[in-house]
Amino acid sequence: MHTPTAAMLVIGDEILSGRTRDSNTNFLARALTDHGIRLMEARVVADEHDRIKAAVQALSSAYTHVFTSGGIGPTHDDITADAVADAMGAAIDIRADARALLQAHYDARGMELNAARLRMARIPDGARLIDNPISTAPGFSIGNVHVMAGVPTIFEAMVASVLPGLTGGPPMLSQSLRLMRGEGDIAAGLGQLAADHPEVSIGSYPFHQNGVHGTNIVVRSQDGAAIDRVMGALSHLFPAEG
Amino acid sequence: MHTPTAAMLVIGDEILSGRTRDSNTNFLARALTDHGIRLMEARVVADEHDRIKAAVQALSSAYTHVFTSGGIGPTHDDITADAVADAMGAAIDIRADARALLQAHYDARGMELNAARLRMARIPDGARLIDNPISTAPGFSIGNVHVMAGVPTIFEAMVASVLPGLTGGPPMLSQSLRLMRGEGDIAAGLGQLAADHPEVSIGSYPFHQNGVHGTNIVVRSQDGAAIDRVMGALSHLFPAEG
Repeated sequence: MHTPTAAMLVIGDEILSGRTRDSNTNFLARALTDHGIRLMEARVVADEHDRIKAAVQALSSAYTHVFTSGGIGPTHDDITADAVADAMGAAIDIRADARALLQAHYDARGMELNAARLRMARIPDGARLIDNPISTAPGFSIGNVHVMAGVPTIFEAMVASVLPGLTGGPPMLSQSLRLMRGEGDIAAGLGQLAADHPEVSIGSYPFHQNGVHGTNIVVRSQDGAAIDRVMGALSHLFPAEG
Repeated sequence: MHTPTAAMLVIGDEILSGRTRDSNTNFLARALTDHGIRLMEARVVADEHDRIKAAVQALSSAYTHVFTSGGIGPTHDDITADAVADAMGAAIDIRADARALLQAHYDARGMELNAARLRMARIPDGARLIDNPISTAPGFSIGNVHVMAGVPTIFEAMVASVLPGLTGGPPMLSQSLRLMRGEGDIAAGLGQLAADHPEVSIGSYPFHQNGVHGTNIVVRSQDGAAIDRVMGALSHLFPAEG
């Protein structure tokens, strides 16, 4: 069973300065998991042409898909479209189809499609537009790179337009067990179980909250029966407290 | 004025599957900004030796500092220490100083320092321990790589131990202006202002919330007087509404 892979590339000084928290990676991660595409890597880079270009080239050659977030608005710091075009060796200019979408949008609102807004119609040659049901200015897919807005509501709508067109593998399934025991208590048994069951991936995630600590154990596989089997072995190994 | 640079490397399948949201990058970003170190890049990679090793090597050669989060506990999926040692060309084994810390911790609690817990004393040769005031198991710094826990409370405590020992540049300062206007309205004037003031960085961040939309403009520099000057020009350019 072949599972397509993906990387997320977040473009934005505001994430790296700490001013803004990125929520798009988590949204994409969950959507891809449900769709049977494995997110292998995520990166955040600054709004700088050469950094965006280098990251797009590295990720698009390493994974089935790359999703980008941010930098496709009308202002001087929105340079993603040009950097992605450069990375993919495509020419870029204002494109008639994108311009028509924007013209209709602003006409309907009695607003001017000025030079700044027209920058949002800069689309690389050969790219397919991604629908933006919220504020019209489209994203685009070129090769295996899907370029989307940074505003979370728009990013999420664009993911919803793009994903159905992408081939997914069998979705990754998971079940989890929450234990009120520290990792050090359960590590030996858990490690043996993981070694005995290479057909699943077993993750161990400690938590400390309000003075209590414990461990969440997550069993992942594309094979639901394999997960059931390992969860059975887990509850035998670590019977519920109380 | 020389500003040190940094990268964040989050290690964890649970972030890439979407099960867990990473909050450590945002915490580190804010702490570094205050300390005068510029976070240039962040990456998330899976719990796989070769991926961790490759990312550590790429980032440690590109930036002044690398901070890692995750994968230093006692379970089978905690492989960060060994992968970082490999990346830095250092031998790794259970080290007496780390073992003594753990021995005292578990002795005081009447708990056994078993083989799994002893894995947390695996520290590369030449590394300096990072204090863990919450659960004792230390992080470590080797070369310019600082290896810390993934649990946010512990990660944050470790950042607080490490940062005072690192040389910062002048802190990056910022001021922001919130406008209830779309980016397309202000982009031309803002772009000209940015071109006229290369001594500051001007970011434009659209927001859509509860049906209203507007733009936050953030002016950043290490020179507070330059920010004041540009903020003055900004409020002249875009007078407050109402």
